[in-house]
Amino acid sequence: MTSVPTDSEQVERANTALYEAVERGDTTAMDRMWLDDPDVEVSCVHPGWPVLRGRSEVLRSFALIMASTEYIQFFLTDVEVAVAGDTALVTCTENILSGGPAESEGELGPLVGQLVVATNVFRRSGDGWRIWSHHGSPVLASEDEEEPEEGEGPGPSAA
Amino acid sequence: MTSVPTDSEQVERANTALYEAVERGDTTAMDRMWLDDPDVEVSCVHPGWPVLRGRSEVLRSFALIMASTEYIQFFLTDVEVAVAGDTALVTCTENILSGGPAESEGELGPLVGQLVVATNVFRRSGDGWRIWSHHGSPVLASEDEEEPEEGEGPGPSAA
Repeated sequence: MTSVPTDSEQVERANTALYEAVERGDTTAMDRMWLDDPDVEVSCVHPGWPVLRGRSEVLRSFALIMASTEYIQFFLTDVEVAVAGDTALVTCTENILSGGPAESEGELGPLVGQLVVATNVFRRSGDGWRIWSHHGSPVLASEDEEEPEEGEGPGPSAA
Repeated sequence: MTSVPTDSEQVERANTALYEAVERGDTTAMDRMWLDDPDVEVSCVHPGWPVLRGRSEVLRSFALIMASTEYIQFFLTDVEVAVAGDTALVTCTENILSGGPAESEGELGPLVGQLVVATNVFRRSGDGWRIWSHHGSPVLASEDEEEPEEGEGPGPSAA
């Protein structure tokens, strides 16, 4: 017996699918996952980047990221889903392991670890939950260090 | 003759009010502005911070920021509002000028400039638009420099 997945479960699957598409370099899946509504503009902020707006600019940025990344894997932790009507908001930590092209052919470039937190907004469409907004940013302080020493990463002066 | 403000105009005012409350150090206004719905958890990411969740944790973080900031001013640019049903998403650039306490009494500490981009999600409530999520992150590349040189800020390898 299978039970019908709740909104929250469906949204969490859509969120996972987003990262799996990036891992596979699947531009077709990315195209399908992002909200396609002429009245509602999508937006995206990659870590350290300015805001990108509109499907064309957003999808192009992911194509660029995927084309220039030899290997990337996301280990999602601390995933929380909040659903309100036809909108859902997911916050999660992206533990990223990625590698660029190697110097010599056939080898993998050096692997780099990265800690990013993301806020992903989804909108219910006739065909499931679609991504409306992705905002990822680097974590510069550890979670149990709320008040870092002066000059040691983010202080409480930035909103 | 005054015209009724559109949803988009109301949301933009709510967005401006959020930053004005931080500038004034107005914890009462902050408390009123954040969504208060037992079924929908609010979330907040300050630049470089991990995710904060729930009204209590989020409001405490703003109180901490406001208490430790002698002077802060936000010049918002590039503000875009997208409304879909009872949810609205604002993206904007926060050009921040802030100063800490001075070494000698009565003086202002050194002013620091900061460039942050934010994605702010609002939810329509019976009493106007309330903040559901704030995510701010530092901009490490200029807007017309989409592919920075290696080792010079964010590359296309981070999603």
